Amino acid sequence: MFTSRRTVTIEWGDCDPADIVFYPNYFRWFDASTAHHFKAAGLPKPELIRRYGVVGFPMVDTSAKFHRPSRHGDEVVIETTITRFGSSSFDVEHRLLRDGKLCVEGFEKRVLVKRTEDGEGITSCPVPDEVKERFYTTGTG
Amino acid sequence: MFTSRRTVTIEWGDCDPADIVFYPNYFRWFDASTAHHFKAAGLPKPELIRRYGVVGFPMVDTSAKFHRPSRHGDEVVIETTITRFGSSSFDVEHRLLRDGKLCVEGFEKRVLVKRTEDGEGITSCPVPDEVKERFYTTGTG
Amino acid sequence: MFTSRRTVTIEWGDCDPADIVFYPNYFRWFDASTAHHFKAAGLPKPELIRRYGVVGFPMVDTSAKFHRPSRHGDEVVIETTITRFGSSSFDVEHRLLRDGKLCVEGFEKRVLVKRTEDGEGITSCPVPDEVKERFYTTGTG
Amino acid sequence: MFTSRRTVTIEWGDCDPADIVFYPNYFRWFDASTAHHFKAAGLPKPELIRRYGVVGFPMVDTSAKFHRPSRHGDEVVIETTITRFGSSSFDVEHRLLRDGKLCVEGFEKRVLVKRTEDGEGITSCPVPDEVKERFYTTGTG
Repeated sequence: MFTSRRTVTIEWGDCDPADIVFYPNYFRWFDASTAHHFKAAGLPKPELIRRYGVVGFPMVDTSAKFHRPSRHGDEVVIETTITRFGSSSFDVEHRLLRDGKLCVEGFEKRVLVKRTEDGEGITSCPVPDEVKERFYTTGTG
Repeated sequence: MFTSRRTVTIEWGDCDPADIVFYPNYFRWFDASTAHHFKAAGLPKPELIRRYGVVGFPMVDTSAKFHRPSRHGDEVVIETTITRFGSSSFDVEHRLLRDGKLCVEGFEKRVLVKRTEDGEGITSCPVPDEVKERFYTTGTG
Repeated sequence: MFTSRRTVTIEWGDCDPADIVFYPNYFRWFDASTAHHFKAAGLPKPELIRRYGVVGFPMVDTSAKFHRPSRHGDEVVIETTITRFGSSSFDVEHRLLRDGKLCVEGFEKRVLVKRTEDGEGITSCPVPDEVKERFYTTGTG
Repeated sequence: MFTSRRTVTIEWGDCDPADIVFYPNYFRWFDASTAHHFKAAGLPKPELIRRYGVVGFPMVDTSAKFHRPSRHGDEVVIETTITRFGSSSFDVEHRLLRDGKLCVEGFEKRVLVKRTEDGEGITSCPVPDEVKERFYTTGTG
């Protein structure tokens, strides 16, 4: 499984009155990193949606451990890896680093979903093998 | 330990192109529910900060399980309980329900912090006994 | 035109390192207030979307004036009025007050839109007379 | 006055159920662009705060015009210029472009502020000449 990386600049509005990142923003960045990871694998999320008729890959279960706070003006790197594929689910790990030091770890279990036939709800659907294969080989991110 | 409750209306801007809540918003609501829980215990966060000279109670570790999605226009109830106090840390559980059905569970480990003496960083500090006692007795929330 | 009102509690995560509301959040609350205004007029946004086959009422033009900052723990009231209907557009004014004092004013020009026939884009559509009439009579909000 | 530029990728979580950017996010990006503009002028916001003892430059008045929507996966460029300095205020203009086409225009009036002597509030303070001069000469952004 390959690892992609992207850089995020911590902005003023990402921080709270204690002058550290308001932690829900880490989940926002991790969500964007998972999307970036698909793009790095050659399958941007908008294309995944169009090509396979899916709605997205909502979260089933997520967690994060916060080791070091970050402040506005900081530049951090997020490293992202899909660690496991199930039939319709997959696990993602994120490591957020500043100056090479681990600041936050994130874990996700997601499931690929499509619209139900009545168009009202969403239901899980298998991850196509050709999608999985993209993550076993080398990415560009 | 008492349980507080508050109602949240899911807004259009809380939802993503799949027309379900963008999950980082759950963490935003859980954070507000923890603040509301302190208020329900008679100790609003701004007063906690002023009276005890602390900066806040940043997150050490958090997780969430997503059982049912919610959509804009939905009204949900969040039930919040502090389940354990350590010396400077405490654990919080949130249950988000819609029409009485469990939709999302959230778990938090937080730590009470104050400014370091040089004013540049933050460091953990003990949770005062009189703060803990507020949560063993009945709240108003 | 009737005026609706709703109360918003300013949360810790709504504020920035200067310990005042990070201003994009005012636009988030104003957007929710416009949705609430439709609900107060007896036509919640999800029902508007289903009944009239529209996608929403995106913003064309908006502005805000900030008179007084607010901080976490503050409770504010937002008063909302539709001040004018065009054929497919409408103007909204918001007044955010704390303890009866005007803190922020917001102005919006929105347009009702539906999907284009190819399903790829959005295009403006007339505001039905029966929708307009709801705002000339008394609301419940 | 020089113009700085930065690129923003529109993320899934930035978009609403109509699959276009939820407009308060434009203000979030414009705020970050103003901070980036100071950095491009050689004076990052954290350094401005430390060196001049200010709290920040909160918004007095802002507006935006929305010409074209953007969707998740889109890359946009934001061009930022300070168009005028007053004694303690300054005006900023943002132009958000996609494929060279103007999508959103943003206008800001901000004021430089410091803590009041009692430490409880904030009050305007003059923009130092050496800060203004940075924007009359060429930046690196």
